[in-house]
Amino acid sequence: MTAILPRSGANWPGLIEHYREYLPVDERTPVVTLREGNTPLIPLESIGRRLGRGLRVWAKFDGLNPTGSFKDRGMTIAVSKAKEAGAQAVLCASTGNTSAAAAAYAARAGLRAYVLIPEGYVALGKLAQALVYGAEVIAIRGNFDQALAIVRTIAEHYPITLVNSVNPFRLQGQKTAAFEVCDQLGTAPDWLCIPVGNAGNITAYWMGFCEYAQRGRIAGRPILQGFEASGAAALVGGKVEPVAHPETVATAIRIGNPASGVRALAAVRASAGAIRVVSDPEILEAYRILACEEGIFCEPASAAAVAGLLKYGHEAPAGGQVVCVLTGNGLKDPDRAIAVSAVEIAPGADPTASAVAKAMGF
Amino acid sequence: MTAILPRSGANWPGLIEHYREYLPVDERTPVVTLREGNTPLIPLESIGRRLGRGLRVWAKFDGLNPTGSFKDRGMTIAVSKAKEAGAQAVLCASTGNTSAAAAAYAARAGLRAYVLIPEGYVALGKLAQALVYGAEVIAIRGNFDQALAIVRTIAEHYPITLVNSVNPFRLQGQKTAAFEVCDQLGTAPDWLCIPVGNAGNITAYWMGFCEYAQRGRIAGRPILQGFEASGAAALVGGKVEPVAHPETVATAIRIGNPASGVRALAAVRASAGAIRVVSDPEILEAYRILACEEGIFCEPASAAAVAGLLKYGHEAPAGGQVVCVLTGNGLKDPDRAIAVSAVEIAPGADPTASAVAKAMGF
Repeated sequence: MTAILPRSGANWPGLIEHYREYLPVDERTPVVTLREGNTPLIPLESIGRRLGRGLRVWAKFDGLNPTGSFKDRGMTIAVSKAKEAGAQAVLCASTGNTSAAAAAYAARAGLRAYVLIPEGYVALGKLAQALVYGAEVIAIRGNFDQALAIVRTIAEHYPITLVNSVNPFRLQGQKTAAFEVCDQLGTAPDWLCIPVGNAGNITAYWMGFCEYAQRGRIAGRPILQGFEASGAAALVGGKVEPVAHPETVATAIRIGNPASGVRALAAVRASAGAIRVVSDPEILEAYRILACEEGIFCEPASAAAVAGLLKYGHEAPAGGQVVCVLTGNGLKDPDRAIAVSAVEIAPGADPTASAVAKAMGF
Repeated sequence: MTAILPRSGANWPGLIEHYREYLPVDERTPVVTLREGNTPLIPLESIGRRLGRGLRVWAKFDGLNPTGSFKDRGMTIAVSKAKEAGAQAVLCASTGNTSAAAAAYAARAGLRAYVLIPEGYVALGKLAQALVYGAEVIAIRGNFDQALAIVRTIAEHYPITLVNSVNPFRLQGQKTAAFEVCDQLGTAPDWLCIPVGNAGNITAYWMGFCEYAQRGRIAGRPILQGFEASGAAALVGGKVEPVAHPETVATAIRIGNPASGVRALAAVRASAGAIRVVSDPEILEAYRILACEEGIFCEPASAAAVAGLLKYGHEAPAGGQVVCVLTGNGLKDPDRAIAVSAVEIAPGADPTASAVAKAMGF
């Protein structure tokens, strides 16, 4: 399974070059890349043991992309195409991972990046990444829906490319994660467990698996197992039922009206899978298990995939291969890490080996 | 230069398996891996243009390792060897990247991790990562030197492995970064620019280049260009001259008495290179350029390598290849990102496209 890479000249060129034949680019496209993709597929042995029945479980850790989330996969191509089209800037309404990725790729492309946010909506910390990449952040006296409407209008009237999820190139880039999973496993997995927020990523994975199957690179497609947070579960009824005030600790999937909901539901149905719910306590328990047993620190939203597997894994075929998609890096949300850590630092011990050994329980 | 990887079965197994023949492991060693290594070599085109004279510049971005720093390279092997030796726990005195890596690999190995810190020395935020991985943090009423002395004593008397920089296996793992640079470039670079704190990493890179040259995998070795922060410059006089109270914004290299100083100086001399100084303003300017022009968000300490190149790059051979080592992820230090970002968020604009377009300068 783990064939060794060639030793010399093996320099990952980024996902556009690596998967060029599958992507809407040609020789005129200026490729803007941070060498995103090629993220590790990490065995989850402890979680496999918890589930038993010979299940083999992996994490596709897309939090190790250059800006710390899977958004880089879509942004490399969205910004490349924006530059090809002669855009002077990119624009999005976002308070999280999208704004960071947009800002980084725009910086690399020599384009300006604008990020629209609702005034008072978000702590500065959440935008630190976009700011450090040099994005211009504009607050409006309005809510997030208004911000979205405004960026769509502006993109129609100025030489500025909208890179929110309505940008069609983003899912094209994101589908390469499915290619990588198959290339790394040497086959398609039996199950793909994935967090569902805006529902674009599960849609993109399905596009990727279908294309690989059509080209004969995999024999079959996985069953999609999508997981929404219980406070933001717009799709679990099998149709899009918007949630007016979504709430969950998993902020990256705190979305009440998923932009790709209809397509995601169709994908899940075609795969004979489901979109189901995990609670915040289940998400945080999976987050803790990933860190303390597997040594993987992901965003809370990412842990929803593992929470779902721990909840419904008994339905997976015995001996099957399961891949959980971890969409973001835990370092994105250090406050959550501190809140979850049960450990307290005890008052200072005497500075002697014996006192410290005693504090350690020896 | 960017040969395409094989499509199927190409699953990076972690650096121990990939470079097994170069490492002190055998079939009895239980390999503890998070699939570390295989980090991207990212072209720095903007910085290359700034320097001119045909220089080709890359960043080896080791901040994309699983815990966000190059420490994972050493820790995969240190913890594997600890487990092989029957240790029940690992132990370190650290307030930064070492503690995070030790905690993550110990969690994965099923070992306990203990982190010793001086009481009151550090904000909880810096230890969030170690805590989330389940490490036990013990504060002592003493300073960092006392903490180091205590962990050494404890490791001698209990079945606990010390994973501070005195652990000899760590540099063995770290040297694989040099292998990867050569494998990715298809040759050794002309210059290697690298931050110098404890001086272990520059020593490890040199070990790696020398071994690759001895085995005939590269024709020549690079010139090492090490850079210390001006407030923690213990090696720039050509011998180890400890700094009693090191100070720099680049906390990961705020070290006054480098453990590997003597070996690092010998390596630099053998390479016909130098260890020189960059100031905090120079470091922060490089940090800003990396983010705003290259789209790369690294730790301030990492930016010291680029600051040094910007300062002394005129000495590099025209048309030469230069690799800058970026040791840590910028997400490790979000407060610094906020402090450095000059951008301010303007008071809320009216929620109309025309008002926002005006705020954008259109």
